[in-house]
Amino acid sequence: MALLEAKPTLSSIGTTTISVFETGEYEVNSITVESRGSSIDSPPPKSLLIFTPVKAGTYPVLHFLHGFALYNSFYSDLLTHIASHGYIAIAPQLYNPIWPWDSGYDEINSAAAVTNWFSQGLKLVLPEKVEADLTKLALAGHSRGGKAAFALALGTYAQTLISFSVLIGIDPVAGENKDNQLPPEILTSQEQSLNLGIPVMVVGTGLGCKQAGLLTPPCAPTGVNHEEFFKESKPTRGHMVVTDYGHMDMLNDNPPGIIGQVSGIMCKNGKGSRDVMRKCVGGIVVATIKAYVEKDATVLKAIIDDPTIAPTTLDPIVLDEA
Amino acid sequence: MALLEAKPTLSSIGTTTISVFETGEYEVNSITVESRGSSIDSPPPKSLLIFTPVKAGTYPVLHFLHGFALYNSFYSDLLTHIASHGYIAIAPQLYNPIWPWDSGYDEINSAAAVTNWFSQGLKLVLPEKVEADLTKLALAGHSRGGKAAFALALGTYAQTLISFSVLIGIDPVAGENKDNQLPPEILTSQEQSLNLGIPVMVVGTGLGCKQAGLLTPPCAPTGVNHEEFFKESKPTRGHMVVTDYGHMDMLNDNPPGIIGQVSGIMCKNGKGSRDVMRKCVGGIVVATIKAYVEKDATVLKAIIDDPTIAPTTLDPIVLDEA
Repeated sequence: MALLEAKPTLSSIGTTTISVFETGEYEVNSITVESRGSSIDSPPPKSLLIFTPVKAGTYPVLHFLHGFALYNSFYSDLLTHIASHGYIAIAPQLYNPIWPWDSGYDEINSAAAVTNWFSQGLKLVLPEKVEADLTKLALAGHSRGGKAAFALALGTYAQTLISFSVLIGIDPVAGENKDNQLPPEILTSQEQSLNLGIPVMVVGTGLGCKQAGLLTPPCAPTGVNHEEFFKESKPTRGHMVVTDYGHMDMLNDNPPGIIGQVSGIMCKNGKGSRDVMRKCVGGIVVATIKAYVEKDATVLKAIIDDPTIAPTTLDPIVLDEA
Repeated sequence: MALLEAKPTLSSIGTTTISVFETGEYEVNSITVESRGSSIDSPPPKSLLIFTPVKAGTYPVLHFLHGFALYNSFYSDLLTHIASHGYIAIAPQLYNPIWPWDSGYDEINSAAAVTNWFSQGLKLVLPEKVEADLTKLALAGHSRGGKAAFALALGTYAQTLISFSVLIGIDPVAGENKDNQLPPEILTSQEQSLNLGIPVMVVGTGLGCKQAGLLTPPCAPTGVNHEEFFKESKPTRGHMVVTDYGHMDMLNDNPPGIIGQVSGIMCKNGKGSRDVMRKCVGGIVVATIKAYVEKDATVLKAIIDDPTIAPTTLDPIVLDEA
């Protein structure tokens, strides 16, 4: 009897699993914290967008790094989805997208500085009775931010005072090609060469390696994209490719301004609704945090066992456990 | 009689002056030289677009540095205009505009390496009987490339084996603001602090400091744009602001591809024809080279004396001689 209870029935797995792809049970608020001119005593080193459950409680934290020349606000729908499952999602603005001149090293140092600020600063800005559990910390990033997340997790370029329990790369990109990577050049072409020491989930897009137009190179070129990041990670490592969507499709619908317009035309986009893509990517992130931060892999394994429960095609889909 | 002949009559000044704003007498060809896979023995360190008179002769050279995340080919109309007046205009592609991750230092080093290649390499790629006179070398750049040109001319960040006789900044931009300059930070806020040692012409745009849209910062913000570059240059220095045009208006009409589309929407553009802007900027460049490379300031002074001979309004217009 005890054994049976410990293992959920198929129908309950199904319900839980599908639910990560839907909005979660927590009402979510967003908080903007400025790095300059803030009224708090210890402002963060970079301005932050924080998505947090409103309900009193203690929640795991996701540190999310935006892509090249993008605003953190363009990910608000995706991050709200994740937070609605009971997480505090924090997205710094690592540099001004109009002046995207920070080096790869600057970006990693900024992300580390923000992480180091969490311990002292988060309690100053979170709602009353909402607490961040910094023993349960996940790191994710999109595109160049995905590569920065890998580099930060390596621990050799910048040190953080608190540790990440899992790394999630969302269509990570290391540069133009193997020979023109954004420094630091972390891809080596060698299988399992990345000494991360934590589980890794790499979410890819099927259209990221395609061109948006004749004169436009792909946003996530073969050789420096999700396939290579997965190949160079050690187990435990997962790889899920959202077949019918593109490199920017996890962003909000029609992000505003000229930077938003540019984000809409630079990469080959999928034909389906971005809401489906955001729910799919958000669900994978939630399932991965549940598995490797909260140590409950039920949902993640259910997705691996039956990828059709995801709202759009995932192919390939691999979980390679240590 | 000799004196009268030495000083051209007003009508002949007028004709010569106006002509710098029209297509010159030389037929121009463009040559593409690849940095890799080139059949020549000593390929240039960066791929080049060269605009050269077809007619046999020896011509002064203009080294032109493109703006941030732009293709050198987007300047082909402007550079053809300049070359048609009897100059060899050479525009390297300093980095891939889709992966504009080169640091400010990389950019300066690349421009220096290209300059150093001229002595050995130009003769391999120029048409027969066309020769570059490298004792008559001008340096120009647009936007971030204008700032790179200033930094290269300073001589402290990279050395060139041959010297520049004049520096022309075309709506140069040093960064987001005084406190967020692209390294190296060459602007100091101090009058005449740039030790360039050669005459400088700064061409500004009246609309460069305006926003293209509510959410888009200006492309050439006040404090780090042409005004500041002029202020920090020492005499001999010129300053001419094309009042009714914007930061990208000296580019070709409708540059192709998505990078081209982006160049068309990022900055506030003038309402007039870009052809007028290109002729105006091209004419100022030609007059400046004539004055400080070929030591004939007749045309430049005529423009200063009567700015209405330019095809569009120049205001302010200043020539501050040493």
